[in-house]
Amino acid sequence: RRGADFAFKATVAAAIMENLDTAHLPPTSDSYTIADLGCSTGPNTVITVKKIIEAIEQRYQMAGHEANVQDLIEFQCFFNDHVSNDFNTLFASLPTNRKFFIAGVPGSFHGRLFPKASINFFNSIYALHWLSSVPKELSDLNSLTWNKGRITYANAHNQLVVEAFVAQFAKDMESFLHARAEETVPGGLISILMTGRQDGMHPSKSIYGPLLQNLESSLVDMANEGLVDKDQLDKFNVPVYSPSATEIRSLVQRNGCFSIARLEELNDGHLSILSAAEIRAVSEEIISKAFGNEILDELYDRYAKKVEDLSPIKDEEGLAVQLFILLKRNY
Amino acid sequence: RRGADFAFKATVAAAIMENLDTAHLPPTSDSYTIADLGCSTGPNTVITVKKIIEAIEQRYQMAGHEANVQDLIEFQCFFNDHVSNDFNTLFASLPTNRKFFIAGVPGSFHGRLFPKASINFFNSIYALHWLSSVPKELSDLNSLTWNKGRITYANAHNQLVVEAFVAQFAKDMESFLHARAEETVPGGLISILMTGRQDGMHPSKSIYGPLLQNLESSLVDMANEGLVDKDQLDKFNVPVYSPSATEIRSLVQRNGCFSIARLEELNDGHLSILSAAEIRAVSEEIISKAFGNEILDELYDRYAKKVEDLSPIKDEEGLAVQLFILLKRNY
Repeated sequence: RRGADFAFKATVAAAIMENLDTAHLPPTSDSYTIADLGCSTGPNTVITVKKIIEAIEQRYQMAGHEANVQDLIEFQCFFNDHVSNDFNTLFASLPTNRKFFIAGVPGSFHGRLFPKASINFFNSIYALHWLSSVPKELSDLNSLTWNKGRITYANAHNQLVVEAFVAQFAKDMESFLHARAEETVPGGLISILMTGRQDGMHPSKSIYGPLLQNLESSLVDMANEGLVDKDQLDKFNVPVYSPSATEIRSLVQRNGCFSIARLEELNDGHLSILSAAEIRAVSEEIISKAFGNEILDELYDRYAKKVEDLSPIKDEEGLAVQLFILLKRNY
Repeated sequence: RRGADFAFKATVAAAIMENLDTAHLPPTSDSYTIADLGCSTGPNTVITVKKIIEAIEQRYQMAGHEANVQDLIEFQCFFNDHVSNDFNTLFASLPTNRKFFIAGVPGSFHGRLFPKASINFFNSIYALHWLSSVPKELSDLNSLTWNKGRITYANAHNQLVVEAFVAQFAKDMESFLHARAEETVPGGLISILMTGRQDGMHPSKSIYGPLLQNLESSLVDMANEGLVDKDQLDKFNVPVYSPSATEIRSLVQRNGCFSIARLEELNDGHLSILSAAEIRAVSEEIISKAFGNEILDELYDRYAKKVEDLSPIKDEEGLAVQLFILLKRNY
């Protein structure tokens, strides 16, 4: 992910230079608003926001404004994540000598967060592959779509499970685009980096298969030893999904409010194994909601033992795909 | 304080109806931005913001907009307090069925917090009597302005101590007004409720005398028993101040960007004794910064014992004054 993240920072800067319309830059007497969706607690979000501001300032300079753009235009950056995000830590970590105004915005980016036409630039890094929830069908153990002994749709035995995830992502992306269409100023940009899969691959192929398999087998071991409820495990799935560029294109076209300025696959070339600390950071909240706090230490200890001797795997199947998407709000 | 708070809510609604210019209401296609300065962790801040929104909606209706103003105009409320404020608790306590967008803004309201001309309505309740810091002169034990054995300028033996607080408040209010003048839209309003004193009273007369005397005597007792460092206590002062309406008028006029729509004294008629929990909530952070965490429990236990048999005192001197101030940004 670090490789893709580095590529992203270079890519987003170039994409801004190309796609921010000179003719429609806000006057420098106005402020320029940036919103980071799924910011977590930083500091990555701040680094990216700074890159974006630099690129936008360069764009103003190219449009004939003098060197001191940063004295003319004021930037306001909104940092968004779920209400359960630790905003106190985020706020405490922000540099005090920053040249932009800040605000934290708690709430789901699958719904409205900002007033109409109030944001110039949206940015979202490694967040949109999270679904708003696991598809409802999967929690019914009497239905055809339960995912016995598995915690991800990736490589699910049951094709209906995969289809339910495809449909849930489509629904979430529609909500996301509908909300952002209201909130983005005409000509404004949305920049997204997220987990995806190669075009042409079956939807069941996902990096979440290998990424989550050690967490899954730790949970299965604990269920077999009676430390985790088996029914609960059969209902539990991690709400993540890896779409293809074609799926994204089709959803953006169906929404109809944005044009696609960039839609690219960035490929790491290897599958990293998440450390116990990393997997805990991303899964602790959903695991404790499903199984309770008391299993957490044991679970991640077992996970740590499983991965301690593993090294990154060569990505034979080409699963380690990140999608870079740049959308422009139609006028 | 509850009495004044109640009076404030009625007053602010009436003042909005009178002072929000029909001719200069933003078009309902725009959003209306409200910022609460010194919000703490709610829920009082939310109740007041709702009252303000109701009054503004009524104002739009009077201006000829139909009954469904809330469907036309979108409200965005910014909640500001120091970066050390518990924004996580604030965000978790906000009603989920609210009809306004929200954002948290960490930072000192003595400096800039928002882009130019981006806020329609500022509100600040029981916050502006806090100074940005104790006047520097008071920390020098060799100067003429140290406040031996006292923790507030109120009734200080030394007139220079009082003058240093007067000057510090003037400086802070200048910074506050300078920042808000940049941030408020033309015709926008600033509504303030804060501790004050009756016009004509000497600056050393302040409700903080009686309000803080039991905390002060608890600290003095602990210093006499060697539990608190005496030098540290001589340097320590609570950074609060009670200005008069005349001081406020003069500072607003000196700033020159606002007209005074309302400037009123609200008087409770009695001096309430803060409970140990209440005094701890407002003083714990500054006490622990000055004396360390380890004295806190002992200090507030002693305070609790001192106040347990006390009832609210009749306000013979007329110290329990709250100021309601409504400023309008000049066009």
